[in-house]
Amino acid sequence: MNITLEQAEAVIAAAKLKATEIDTKMDICVVDAGSNLVAFARMDGAWIGSIDISFKKAKTAAWFTMDTATLTPLVKPDAPLFNIEHSNGGLITFPGGVIIKNAEGTVIGAIGVSGSSVENDHIVAEAGAKVIA
Amino acid sequence: MNITLEQAEAVIAAAKLKATEIDTKMDICVVDAGSNLVAFARMDGAWIGSIDISFKKAKTAAWFTMDTATLTPLVKPDAPLFNIEHSNGGLITFPGGVIIKNAEGTVIGAIGVSGSSVENDHIVAEAGAKVIA
Amino acid sequence: MNITLEQAEAVIAAAKLKATEIDTKMDICVVDAGSNLVAFARMDGAWIGSIDISFKKAKTAAWFTMDTATLTPLVKPDAPLFNIEHSNGGLITFPGGVIIKNAEGTVIGAIGVSGSSVENDHIVAEAGAKVIA
Amino acid sequence: MNITLEQAEAVIAAAKLKATEIDTKMDICVVDAGSNLVAFARMDGAWIGSIDISFKKAKTAAWFTMDTATLTPLVKPDAPLFNIEHSNGGLITFPGGVIIKNAEGTVIGAIGVSGSSVENDHIVAEAGAKVIA
Repeated sequence: MNITLEQAEAVIAAAKLKATEIDTKMDICVVDAGSNLVAFARMDGAWIGSIDISFKKAKTAAWFTMDTATLTPLVKPDAPLFNIEHSNGGLITFPGGVIIKNAEGTVIGAIGVSGSSVENDHIVAEAGAKVIA
Repeated sequence: MNITLEQAEAVIAAAKLKATEIDTKMDICVVDAGSNLVAFARMDGAWIGSIDISFKKAKTAAWFTMDTATLTPLVKPDAPLFNIEHSNGGLITFPGGVIIKNAEGTVIGAIGVSGSSVENDHIVAEAGAKVIA
Repeated sequence: MNITLEQAEAVIAAAKLKATEIDTKMDICVVDAGSNLVAFARMDGAWIGSIDISFKKAKTAAWFTMDTATLTPLVKPDAPLFNIEHSNGGLITFPGGVIIKNAEGTVIGAIGVSGSSVENDHIVAEAGAKVIA
Repeated sequence: MNITLEQAEAVIAAAKLKATEIDTKMDICVVDAGSNLVAFARMDGAWIGSIDISFKKAKTAAWFTMDTATLTPLVKPDAPLFNIEHSNGGLITFPGGVIIKNAEGTVIGAIGVSGSSVENDHIVAEAGAKVIA
């Protein structure tokens, strides 16, 4: 089961709405359960450097079927997964990557958001992910 | 002058329409004049391998401000730009990358399409690019 | 709005002057607002390893429209952007990358300087950036 | 013996002059005998995609102490060095990379030019290289 383009576009639309509501400019990426890109949007004026970060947040979430925020405490210098970011051509392990589940609870993809504080990035990613299911 | 997200989404919508009309499934990428990604869509069932090809077609067009179809004859074994594809982390030099100009004729971005024959890819890219200007 | 070559050469000339004044040898890179290279100079005897660092400092500043010194505290192990350097093919997040604004305050590019202490790198980058606007 | 920054800047100035004289816009790169970057300039409006090509032309010339035009016939499908471009992270083997010798005939660096036809690229590179020696 993979997210469809129509679903991914609904996720991005909801994320853009939330981003505008909290006065931010975001790069928003949606991947399927296989971590392959489905849809992307860079809001006008959003950072160029956040294109790749939004990709890596979405892929990291899809690769481990968990939000990147769940990984954050596990990658600190004293934690077990310290420097896991060196794998897979580069992970991003701070908040902003959120898994997308369907109504049955199956992971069908992930959204990655970058462009503001990690708190805002996570809020916008959550707003996108929750339009599914 | 760079393409806006609203413009890029209109380009992708027109490209999707044409792709459906000619019964193909496409990966469609839009970059700005600086070759940075603005929007992307992978139609359901479109090849995963075409994600990166659509990126490289759009970027190649933006990098050289010309359609990739213009480069095609120039990169043959006996032509002057043979093996130019080894630059820039990989070019794609067959049809499917088309520059996007605004009403004043300024290049504001490019579209890259991949997923069918190169003729179809080019037709869909053209359909997307022409909604601007 | 992107920096011109003439402006970029003025930025590099000012940076070289400051580098000589404080008795350092620097690699100096100028990119445009889209993070594409405009001009570069390696002073005689400056580190070869600083070529790429000057590139990445300039690009990091352009990608996030902020000085790399602003990022420095945000990427420490306990800070929110820890290990962001794994994105974009490698960021440099210590001082020495400075954004360049025109008279209207628009970011038109960035300068990256590497070759001495990060304090000196930042001083030389600032000296370059301030000849514009 | 390596080219100095002052010499490299003279090479670039001469190349820019010739580029303007023949009505082209060029990316111009100068490396030292060790193939490490010394100076670079992108003329206003020159292709973004030619930044990397100018780098690879200069480096290819420095790596093999010969003009890239000398390599061109050797890399054709029936020639002995077919597909040598896969080495060194990517070679460019068509004209526009020219070695720079000092008065004693020692190779002290190379210039790479990209932005027009390969004939024009070579002419501009030659104009740059010949200001030395």
